[in-house]
Amino acid sequence: MNRKQLFKAIKLKRSFLCVGLDSDINKIPKHLLSYEDPIFEFNRQIIDSTHKYTVAYKPNLAFYESMGASGWVSLGKTVEHIRKVSPEVIIIADAKRGDIGNTSALYAKTFFETYDFDAVTLAPYMGLDTVSPFLNYDNKWSIILALTSNKSASDFQYIRDNNNTALYENVLKTAQDWGNTDQIMFVVGATKAEALSEIREIAPDNFLLVPGIGAQGGNLQEVAKYGMNDHCGLLVNSSRGIIYASSESDFAMVAESKTKELQIEMEKYLKEAKLI
Amino acid sequence: MNRKQLFKAIKLKRSFLCVGLDSDINKIPKHLLSYEDPIFEFNRQIIDSTHKYTVAYKPNLAFYESMGASGWVSLGKTVEHIRKVSPEVIIIADAKRGDIGNTSALYAKTFFETYDFDAVTLAPYMGLDTVSPFLNYDNKWSIILALTSNKSASDFQYIRDNNNTALYENVLKTAQDWGNTDQIMFVVGATKAEALSEIREIAPDNFLLVPGIGAQGGNLQEVAKYGMNDHCGLLVNSSRGIIYASSESDFAMVAESKTKELQIEMEKYLKEAKLI
Repeated sequence: MNRKQLFKAIKLKRSFLCVGLDSDINKIPKHLLSYEDPIFEFNRQIIDSTHKYTVAYKPNLAFYESMGASGWVSLGKTVEHIRKVSPEVIIIADAKRGDIGNTSALYAKTFFETYDFDAVTLAPYMGLDTVSPFLNYDNKWSIILALTSNKSASDFQYIRDNNNTALYENVLKTAQDWGNTDQIMFVVGATKAEALSEIREIAPDNFLLVPGIGAQGGNLQEVAKYGMNDHCGLLVNSSRGIIYASSESDFAMVAESKTKELQIEMEKYLKEAKLI
Repeated sequence: MNRKQLFKAIKLKRSFLCVGLDSDINKIPKHLLSYEDPIFEFNRQIIDSTHKYTVAYKPNLAFYESMGASGWVSLGKTVEHIRKVSPEVIIIADAKRGDIGNTSALYAKTFFETYDFDAVTLAPYMGLDTVSPFLNYDNKWSIILALTSNKSASDFQYIRDNNNTALYENVLKTAQDWGNTDQIMFVVGATKAEALSEIREIAPDNFLLVPGIGAQGGNLQEVAKYGMNDHCGLLVNSSRGIIYASSESDFAMVAESKTKELQIEMEKYLKEAKLI
């Protein structure tokens, strides 16, 4: 999937919503535990009820890994199911991998061959060597951590160099040249919505994956105001606010209504920007 | 395992060698492919033939993940086997994870509960939030990327701040205060042996995991000269130079002799430093 196709999906769905599949065996509704694969059953019902309003799904790898091999089986079935019911969405592995050489090449193989993801989140600390094996795949994306919304982001991301450029700005400047705008996205935390206009000066054309709407307290209107570009350029993620909106047997229906609410708000911003 | 116990293992084995289990289905001897779990069988024979000379094993997660769920089964069996045949060694998950909050807590659960690792490599980009869930486990280690030996390490790790401190130095300074020297190690690439003396000024007491002896071209003598402290303070890794020294049916025997060679050299440096 390239940038044009992603924008087409956004216009079709009238949404730039990414649903984060942070699927936790301890949090899913209890009645699902009688299924052979409760995590897949949870994901399947969430996907079936939300995909009309969604352009992206983002399984968070830690949730699957923590279950051992069976978690990876649930993950694989989830990716296949998304592909089947909604072929136009982008499927993101939120894995935050970051290694080099043949190790990095095997991470790329994991997510682009063993599993059928379109995109992977990557950590920039080791530089281009982390990302280059991922760039060898056509129509796949590397989503690089730039500015995160957690408290300790300031430990290193805000350190300014001799030119008064913060580390996260150096990441944006350097990493956008590693590939084209069909290949490179950035993670930018939503609690820093005002920082988005400055980020757009550095990286006007790249898609931004913005986590943190909902449980982490981001403001969708601000994100749209400061972050949108002529291809929309935003994927805004919500995880817990959708998938755990109800812990009862109506969870899929409640997830649908939460997703639809966000889609309606997103449609408004897309119209205001004259993108649809 | 704490620092004292690790030093005890080093004195017992007269070695500070870590064997990297970068076990690749395409590189292991062909006769192993008839086994039900070829990767485990390869690891088992490597472990059985090398553990006398070794204080650490480091499975590289990418190699296991790229095989999907079955790779995680091989990984789990490998960890159990190491624990059984050589309970005094430290088992390191070379995973380079880096996330925050409940996601990071689930990565800690993966490696310290679902699997029985002693230590995990972690990326520092998101700051303390990445590491803190790992610190909640007693007798477990967080091994934080500081200075890596790859070419593009210079993309960000060498960026100097207003005080002329490089990013990797800021990581060493900041992260050593996140936990004590029983909890925090650093990854320092071996191709920068001369940088080790400067690193020892910043972090005199932390253990350093030094990859890159062998295939990546590090020099063991230099590493020992500049990096050793009064607890040895070094785990020096070799992967391909040991496990792929032969691709024939004698691979385990050849791995043993390569490991023994390194152990003998390490014993010399430990004696010269009057640590044994």
